Amino acid sequence: MRFVDIINKKKYGGQLSEEEIAGWIDGYVSGEIPDYQVSALLMAILFQGMTQEEILQLTMKMMHSGDVVDLSSIEGIKVDKHSTGGVGDKTTLVLGPLTAACGVKMAKMSGRGLGFTGGTIDKLESIRGFRTDLPRDAFIRQVNEIGIAVIGQSGNLVPADKKLYALRDVTGTVDSIPLIASSIMSKKLAAGSDVIVLDVKYGSGAFMKTPEEAVQLAQTMIDIGTGAGRKVRAVISSMEAPLGRAVGNALEVREAVETLAGRGPSDLKELCMTAGALILQEAGICRDTQEARQMLKEKTEDGSALEKLAQMVRAQGGDDEMIYDPALLPQAPAQTVITAEQSGWVTGISAMQIGRLAMQLGAGRARKDDVILPDVGIVLQVKPGSRVKAGDPLCIAYHRETPDVQWQKECREAFMIGQEAVKEPQLIYRII
Amino acid sequence: MRFVDIINKKKYGGQLSEEEIAGWIDGYVSGEIPDYQVSALLMAILFQGMTQEEILQLTMKMMHSGDVVDLSSIEGIKVDKHSTGGVGDKTTLVLGPLTAACGVKMAKMSGRGLGFTGGTIDKLESIRGFRTDLPRDAFIRQVNEIGIAVIGQSGNLVPADKKLYALRDVTGTVDSIPLIASSIMSKKLAAGSDVIVLDVKYGSGAFMKTPEEAVQLAQTMIDIGTGAGRKVRAVISSMEAPLGRAVGNALEVREAVETLAGRGPSDLKELCMTAGALILQEAGICRDTQEARQMLKEKTEDGSALEKLAQMVRAQGGDDEMIYDPALLPQAPAQTVITAEQSGWVTGISAMQIGRLAMQLGAGRARKDDVILPDVGIVLQVKPGSRVKAGDPLCIAYHRETPDVQWQKECREAFMIGQEAVKEPQLIYRII
Repeated sequence: MRFVDIINKKKYGGQLSEEEIAGWIDGYVSGEIPDYQVSALLMAILFQGMTQEEILQLTMKMMHSGDVVDLSSIEGIKVDKHSTGGVGDKTTLVLGPLTAACGVKMAKMSGRGLGFTGGTIDKLESIRGFRTDLPRDAFIRQVNEIGIAVIGQSGNLVPADKKLYALRDVTGTVDSIPLIASSIMSKKLAAGSDVIVLDVKYGSGAFMKTPEEAVQLAQTMIDIGTGAGRKVRAVISSMEAPLGRAVGNALEVREAVETLAGRGPSDLKELCMTAGALILQEAGICRDTQEARQMLKEKTEDGSALEKLAQMVRAQGGDDEMIYDPALLPQAPAQTVITAEQSGWVTGISAMQIGRLAMQLGAGRARKDDVILPDVGIVLQVKPGSRVKAGDPLCIAYHRETPDVQWQKECREAFMIGQEAVKEPQLIYRII
Repeated sequence: MRFVDIINKKKYGGQLSEEEIAGWIDGYVSGEIPDYQVSALLMAILFQGMTQEEILQLTMKMMHSGDVVDLSSIEGIKVDKHSTGGVGDKTTLVLGPLTAACGVKMAKMSGRGLGFTGGTIDKLESIRGFRTDLPRDAFIRQVNEIGIAVIGQSGNLVPADKKLYALRDVTGTVDSIPLIASSIMSKKLAAGSDVIVLDVKYGSGAFMKTPEEAVQLAQTMIDIGTGAGRKVRAVISSMEAPLGRAVGNALEVREAVETLAGRGPSDLKELCMTAGALILQEAGICRDTQEARQMLKEKTEDGSALEKLAQMVRAQGGDDEMIYDPALLPQAPAQTVITAEQSGWVTGISAMQIGRLAMQLGAGRARKDDVILPDVGIVLQVKPGSRVKAGDPLCIAYHRETPDVQWQKECREAFMIGQEAVKEPQLIYRII
């Protein structure tokens, strides 16, 4: 079959067969099918969608395009966690050590930041000495010994997705639920865990703009995982405002440490409790939500969750003193306080704007080869629902060079202030 | 602006600005914008369409991507004619000499066959010695002297379309009315005529499957031409069954000669009268349809139309004896008669099937570099509406190698035979 016939089939709304999908992925990875045909197919998929059967076949085919990690030498049920990404999302830094302290085996391969702010790997690298490139056997040994390891994605994991994602990025074909779901799940399946808990976000700082779209994406990923014989659950949560208060790499590590010590912001704590309870239940450690939340609370209060993070940092060559004393983490040389011009209630904080502004300070990458500054970022002083008076601080910018007037103006405008009292918005929309 | 932003704008249904369209075409022709981004944009256009404004701007931009022919040294109103192509379509071979005999100046650049059967240039090349590569000044001199010349498209006419069409061909983005209309009209505008008469076909042997789609394509092209200051008219005609009886290059030249001598098949004659009347009126030679049809009839009956073809053939180095005596045209060495298996009325003849079968004999190209055999093809012995008895000939295949049983079976199946009398279907659907 000529590849143009496959493009036409999808263009007219047809369902691609397993053979056609295999031919596409094999031919693309081998270089036989050129970019210009694949980008036309991707755009046709964006308009016509894919059936659940096609999505599962595409995911499995991509998963098997490279290495598949064998975690069978790790005892017990292995758990992975994935967030669709957002501003101030340091959930993995909390949830990993917290659930590992409860007995979960978390073998996590994480990505660098593609969006406005750094990814989990970028955040961890703000800890002096921390290595994210462990060899496969050291990675598995560490998970067996202490229950958790977080490393960067290895070179040959799902090469088909690497090539496809690079093409989607420059051809306007990123925002398709079948393509997003198969991209994420091919990597999660290849990473080998038995249980996958997804944090799917919606709102101004997320890929999905509405909760309905986020549910659709989550359900698509759950169906893929189930079809592949894994246990998959999802939390649908809001990314209208940044998660927690800190945005920026070392600043977020510090907030994660505080949260593991029980002092973190309430939205981040709630998300970690919700996703953590799912993990403990699916891993067979707890029977129900109540029991799971109780265990998560205990492991926070007795210090073992924080100790688990320190243990992981030590095991991966990092300076664990920075965990016990976050003041040792990289600190930006200067701060600028952004203040409210009027009194009222904070009705919203644009996650997208805050993310973009933090990126401009150096906390994220505008281009793939930009270097991230670990110490810069923004720390919110208010959250949606807060009452403010004119002159109160809205946030503090941590920076190397003082941001200009335009930046400060835009930063102030990221905070919506109204004259009527508003409640703190709900973070968790649904659990699936 | 990054090109991916242009893709996204169209993907979300936006209207591209003149500047964005210019950036696209300039960047693509120069090689700065890669194929894989353009194919994604083309697929987005296929789904989202283009406004009339965008289509006009795209057409003008493509037209000016290469040479624009200056016909101002030809006296009078210059006329061009374009058919969207079909099976057995030898209209140009009749219409050109016929209207030139009435005083029209027809400076026609024609393409080779892209579909199942040869194009006008391929058909003319079955005449021994006929040259289709005249230099520009010889072309213009000939039109001034005898009123007509038909040559192949010159090298640098609309290079943007050449590059875009090659990409559309392999990315499933051919069948978009905005893209078809701008492709055709950019070439017609660059060819420099004042009046353009379009023959837009619908049916199994045409790009457009329904008369409604054909009207939409025709109207889009008329709007482009009007926007560019040209006079454009269109005939919408059926391509359910082949046009006339002959399909194949020399066979079609022979049928054109017969039609110019007044003995051709009625459907081809009617199409030439209809389109010819439009040409004579738009060129200001006749005031109304009645007067125009009368003049076309006279020029056929007095032999001057056929003499004009002979004149053109002579002027372009061809053997005009072949026009006066078509038996001298290339003749296939053998024939096979395909007969009816049952009696009844011919309710339809699949133009697409007949085209494909003629191509298999060698009358058309399956690939761009295939060599066309001038002498092979199919001549229908019946037309829709004909009454047949079992054993009657349906068509005669002219071939070099005897077609196999499967070919003969498929050829017979191209003729639909029913048990109730049907009338000859209407050829002309509408004149715009």
